[in-house]
Amino acid sequence: MKLGIIGLGKMGLNLAVNCQRQGHEIIGTDISSSCLKAAEVEEIKTVTTIDQLVASLPDRKIIWVMVPNGDPLTAVLDQLDQLLKVDDIVIDGGNSNFKESQVRSAHFSSKGIHFFDIGTSGGTSGANQGACLMIGGNQEVFKEIEPLINDISIDDGYLYTGETGSGHFLKMVHNGIEYGMMQAIAEGFDVLEGGPFDYNLEEVARVWNHGSVVRSWLMELAEDAFKEDPKLTAIKGVMNSSGEAKWTLETALDYQIPTPVIALSLIMRYRSLYDDTFTGKVVAALRNGFGGHAVEKHND
Amino acid sequence: MKLGIIGLGKMGLNLAVNCQRQGHEIIGTDISSSCLKAAEVEEIKTVTTIDQLVASLPDRKIIWVMVPNGDPLTAVLDQLDQLLKVDDIVIDGGNSNFKESQVRSAHFSSKGIHFFDIGTSGGTSGANQGACLMIGGNQEVFKEIEPLINDISIDDGYLYTGETGSGHFLKMVHNGIEYGMMQAIAEGFDVLEGGPFDYNLEEVARVWNHGSVVRSWLMELAEDAFKEDPKLTAIKGVMNSSGEAKWTLETALDYQIPTPVIALSLIMRYRSLYDDTFTGKVVAALRNGFGGHAVEKHND
Repeated sequence: MKLGIIGLGKMGLNLAVNCQRQGHEIIGTDISSSCLKAAEVEEIKTVTTIDQLVASLPDRKIIWVMVPNGDPLTAVLDQLDQLLKVDDIVIDGGNSNFKESQVRSAHFSSKGIHFFDIGTSGGTSGANQGACLMIGGNQEVFKEIEPLINDISIDDGYLYTGETGSGHFLKMVHNGIEYGMMQAIAEGFDVLEGGPFDYNLEEVARVWNHGSVVRSWLMELAEDAFKEDPKLTAIKGVMNSSGEAKWTLETALDYQIPTPVIALSLIMRYRSLYDDTFTGKVVAALRNGFGGHAVEKHND
Repeated sequence: MKLGIIGLGKMGLNLAVNCQRQGHEIIGTDISSSCLKAAEVEEIKTVTTIDQLVASLPDRKIIWVMVPNGDPLTAVLDQLDQLLKVDDIVIDGGNSNFKESQVRSAHFSSKGIHFFDIGTSGGTSGANQGACLMIGGNQEVFKEIEPLINDISIDDGYLYTGETGSGHFLKMVHNGIEYGMMQAIAEGFDVLEGGPFDYNLEEVARVWNHGSVVRSWLMELAEDAFKEDPKLTAIKGVMNSSGEAKWTLETALDYQIPTPVIALSLIMRYRSLYDDTFTGKVVAALRNGFGGHAVEKHND
C-alpha cells in the first residue's frame, strides 16, 4: 500500500521504517526539520507540508497520524479535514483520549471520511520491529487496511476492538496498568535498595526474568537499566506522565470502579515532580502547632 | 545427590519430580497420606515420618523443607533440630519471614548445621519444569549444593544472594511486586469490564501478550483464565494472601520507604475478604447524621 505518515518522531519514524521494510510505499512529513533529516537517513521519502503529502497520495488516501495529542494533533487533523475527501482514511495512532477520538470520528464520518483510533504499544522497538496495535473504527473498512496492520504488527499483535474509541480506550487502560506495574516494580527495588541486604539489582532483575512470577518486559527493561547504571545515579526520579493513566482514573471515577493502585501510581508521579510540597509544609506547621514538633527550615 | 524433601504438597511434590528427573535420588515425606499417595503416583520414594527420612539419608544429610510457614514449618524444623548433626544441610524453600530465617539459621549454625533460605518462584509449573531460586546462606557450603540448584532451576534462574535471610527477603519483595502487578492488571480489566465498550477479555490479554509494554507471565495467566471463563463468573473475588506483601510493607515501614502501591494492593486483598465492612457502616451512619443521607438497611 501507499500511505502517508504525519509525524516522524520516535514512534512515527520507526513505524515508517517498519512499513517500508514490509514493502509499503511511505511518504512522510513532520514540522521538525531534524525529524525530516532523520527520516531521510532511513531512506523515507519526505515532503515538507501536509498539503504536499496529501497531494502526493493516490485516491483513497490513507494517512497515519503519529503526533503528540493535544494541540499538535488537533492542528494536523484540522488540516486533514480541509484536504481529504469521501472514502479517504485517517488513522490516529497516538495516545489520544478516546472521547476526543469519538468526536473526531463522528466529524470525519459526517463527511464520509473513515477514522480509525489505533492504540500503539511496544515502544519504539515495537514500532520498528513489530507493534502491538488496538484498532477501533468501521469493521468493513478495517478489512481493507488489515493487510497493512498485519504486516507492521508482531505476530498475533493486533486486535480489532470494535466501534470508534475502543482502540484508544483499550490503549488507555493498557497504560493505566503499565503505570501500576511500573510503580510496583519500582517500589520493590526501592525496598531492596533501602533494606538490610546488599543486592546487585541487575542480577536480581535477571533472575526474576528467568522463571519467576514477575517476569515481564518491564522487568527486562529494569535489568537493562541496572546494567547500564547499577544505582541509577545518573537519573533523577522525576516521573512524567502523558495523560493515559489520568484518563483511566477519570473513567474509573465516572463509572465508580475502584482503581486505587492505578490512582496512586499516577499520584506518585505527580509527587515526583516536586522537591518539596505545600502539603509537607502544612503538615509540618500543624505538627509544630499542636505538639511543638520542630519544623525544618527552608534553606534557599 | 541424594536428598530428603519434607512437604509433598503442590510445590514440594513438583520439586521432587523435578529433582528426580534431573537424576537426583529423592526420599520424601508429608504428614498428609493423600500427599504421600500422590508422590507414589509420581514414583517418588516416600517414608511416613521425618525420623525415617533422616535415617534413610547418608551422612552430610541434605533436607529440603517445603511446608507452609508458621506452625507447620516450626514443627518440622524443631524436629530436624533434634535429628541432624554437624555439617548437615537444611534448606527452607518456602515463603518464610526473613527475620525468622535469620534466627533459625543462627540456631542451626550454633550446632554446626548449615541453613539456607531459598525463595522459590515460578509456581507449581516452575517447581516442576525449572524453578526461579533466590538463595541466602553460607557461600562456601552453597557451592557444594550448587549443582543441585543448577539442575532444578530454569536456565539463569537462580541467584546466590548473600548472607542468611537475603534469599527469603528477596522472595518477599518479589511477592510484594507481584501483588502490585496483579492488582494493577486486575484494576485495568475491571475498567474494561465496567466501561463503555464491549471487549473480549481473552483477546485483549492475548494482544497485550504480543508486543505490548505490559506483556508478562501474569498477563499470560490472565489470558488463560479468560479463555477458561470469559467473565470469571465461577470465581468469587476473594483475594487471600500469605504474608509476603505484609512483610514487604512492614519492612518498608521500618525503613520509612514509601510503597503505596504495594500497601494498597495488600489492603485491597483484605477488603476483598468482607462482603460488608464496619468502615462502610460508620461512613453511612455519619452521612446520615450530618446530611440526612439515606442508609441502606441490612437485609439479613
